[in-house]
Amino acid sequence: MKAEIICVGTELLLGQIVNTNAQFLARQLNELGINHYFQTVVGDNPQRLIEVTELAESRSDIIIYTGGLGPTRDDLTKESIAQYLDEDLVIDQKALDHVKDHFAKSRRKMNDNNIDMAKTFKNGMLFENKQGQAVGTAIEKNNSLYIILPGPPSEMKAMFLNDVKPYLLENFTDHTVMTSEFLNFFGIGESDLANRLDDLIEQQSDPSIAIYVGDYVVSLRLTSAASSQTENEKKIKALSEEILDRVGDWYYGSGYNASPTQILNENLKKFDKTISFAESFTGGEAATRLVRHPGASQVFRGSIVAYDEEAKINTLAVDPEILQSDGMVSEACAREMAKNAQTKLQTDYALSFTGVAGPDSMEGHPAGTVYIGLALENGETKVFEAHIHGGRDAVRVRSIYTAFIKIIRLLNK
Amino acid sequence: MKAEIICVGTELLLGQIVNTNAQFLARQLNELGINHYFQTVVGDNPQRLIEVTELAESRSDIIIYTGGLGPTRDDLTKESIAQYLDEDLVIDQKALDHVKDHFAKSRRKMNDNNIDMAKTFKNGMLFENKQGQAVGTAIEKNNSLYIILPGPPSEMKAMFLNDVKPYLLENFTDHTVMTSEFLNFFGIGESDLANRLDDLIEQQSDPSIAIYVGDYVVSLRLTSAASSQTENEKKIKALSEEILDRVGDWYYGSGYNASPTQILNENLKKFDKTISFAESFTGGEAATRLVRHPGASQVFRGSIVAYDEEAKINTLAVDPEILQSDGMVSEACAREMAKNAQTKLQTDYALSFTGVAGPDSMEGHPAGTVYIGLALENGETKVFEAHIHGGRDAVRVRSIYTAFIKIIRLLNK
Repeated sequence: MKAEIICVGTELLLGQIVNTNAQFLARQLNELGINHYFQTVVGDNPQRLIEVTELAESRSDIIIYTGGLGPTRDDLTKESIAQYLDEDLVIDQKALDHVKDHFAKSRRKMNDNNIDMAKTFKNGMLFENKQGQAVGTAIEKNNSLYIILPGPPSEMKAMFLNDVKPYLLENFTDHTVMTSEFLNFFGIGESDLANRLDDLIEQQSDPSIAIYVGDYVVSLRLTSAASSQTENEKKIKALSEEILDRVGDWYYGSGYNASPTQILNENLKKFDKTISFAESFTGGEAATRLVRHPGASQVFRGSIVAYDEEAKINTLAVDPEILQSDGMVSEACAREMAKNAQTKLQTDYALSFTGVAGPDSMEGHPAGTVYIGLALENGETKVFEAHIHGGRDAVRVRSIYTAFIKIIRLLNK
Repeated sequence: MKAEIICVGTELLLGQIVNTNAQFLARQLNELGINHYFQTVVGDNPQRLIEVTELAESRSDIIIYTGGLGPTRDDLTKESIAQYLDEDLVIDQKALDHVKDHFAKSRRKMNDNNIDMAKTFKNGMLFENKQGQAVGTAIEKNNSLYIILPGPPSEMKAMFLNDVKPYLLENFTDHTVMTSEFLNFFGIGESDLANRLDDLIEQQSDPSIAIYVGDYVVSLRLTSAASSQTENEKKIKALSEEILDRVGDWYYGSGYNASPTQILNENLKKFDKTISFAESFTGGEAATRLVRHPGASQVFRGSIVAYDEEAKINTLAVDPEILQSDGMVSEACAREMAKNAQTKLQTDYALSFTGVAGPDSMEGHPAGTVYIGLALENGETKVFEAHIHGGRDAVRVRSIYTAFIKIIRLLNK
């Protein structure tokens, strides 16, 4: 079984947006075990759309289109494919009501193009659009499956996961139950991780193993398509244990796209603990990352961002003598910062970050030298020195992740 | 003149990375005035690469490849195209020395595949790689131009801007001098902006006008390709004045990809002023955004992130009576926060952010209700109430941008 992705949109050809739809669909097809060798981007132009369709159906069984279902005159994907296949489009009453309802609520006037968003193949399937207006549709003809999805990523993704994926799983793969688990690692590179699991990756079949590089982290996706959910989970569990035996030192948590920040937030909630920060070179980023997660207000009290020496004295009550003798980039300064943040903000834990983001060195320390203070519940304060590689942004994020993972481990000990 | 983009890489077909190269090249071609109607993604597979090349040369004059120049056995873009065109590749001695030097410095052993990174068309052009190892190359044959660039975005972009763009400009467009300016707007939507400039966009020729939607901002790119730099600048200046006459209310600054944060940082430096923040629902994001810009330490002293009521009392000395009578989401609280941050951090200006990021309402205020405090140099503190639409992230960023632009306008008054 081979699939092919065709993304339709002049905005892609003008470079106005980046094609995240192709990446999403590529991952999904890979997870489903459906091969795919080509992706094409084409503008909102019926003739060229037919041209790429003819080519795609000559080499693939499934063609997935995204884009060109919207309310402007240029949006002609459904119409073009319907005409090419000599198939009728009909208006779905429920979908039309949904569109009408949307316009009524936003007090705007509907036109004929808006009605087109409710069109679906008469002899095909309809995919409801819960995030927007334009419905998706699909039709099987001449041994090919044509799937037409909307362009806005949130609409396309929801529609694919809710409707298209189960349909493909049932009808276009050898299995009907698929289970995936993501194991996330920090502090180890993609190639190092792959080397340490070389034999497991070589001999993979079920579960399959895929490596993804994320935002300063690396993830392994284990996918099993055995006979049942229970069977899948058993197989995944056995494999993850083998993997964690080898590379557990860099593992910080599981879950799709789960960053160290998300895992920290979940763990603080689970153990009913609170946290605060004292930030120098991280400039508020530890706080910013945490508050992006839902319910962070249950665990987070505040962060004192003191970017220069005076600010450290005035807002964090760091002893001027310490700044004089040890400097801002020092174990002693990190200790005071963490301790005083904990006291001021009355939290179970407090983390402090002082160091050199770079590119220039500071107080004689090279870029990447950081001190992380960790004030504990028992009143004790530990300080860790680290030497972090990468540019300014990398030094900040890696320092924050290093610190967050220390607390995750502490809570789960 | 028509161009076509072919991105080579199995990692794109697996969805491991998003195709930012295609977006970058699309924008560049658009700016150069070179039409382009198709983008293709194909894996590291010689046969399929030839297949898409045959198709591309049948409909386009210029084919730009990215990817498949690296040091692994799979990287075969140059070799495949050379074989297909019956052209020789040769090792460039200077490029080889560069590769050798890199391996010597990183104390790794070179192999034959590494030597291949120094290969270039014998009868073609070589593009030096200043960011990495694999050189780019290009050749004209049978009325087509084949341009082969590396896959890593930083290498590809630098190579395109340094070498490929000037070459295309000189040989494949009608003009040799091209000047662009970016005007950036906040608080106005893409379609509203387009409508207000409808006639200018309709009649555009030189300068041309392109609209780009950025991170909560909208930008206009004005490109002139008249006879000289001076002539270009004159034409752009006349058009920008006409544009700003109409939509100047939403304009905050010029420059490619220049966010309100960047413009604020530049302006504070220019006027030699300092700033601090007191943040509630923005959770440190005002600080985080500012410190990402080079030299922010000249203007930024710190931010006190007080996420709950207690924190506002303990770290910002907000009067508990105000919190009792007016609540955290109030003009009075925003005023105290800004004033006290200014005093504690001893800065010329201080901004405070208190409000409801959502999705739930708070203290009876709906999501999107925000109060922005602005402590001025003369000791006065102003407070602005705003009602911001969008999800949590949008409310945060739009509030921060609203506040930053207030200071930008104040400094430039």
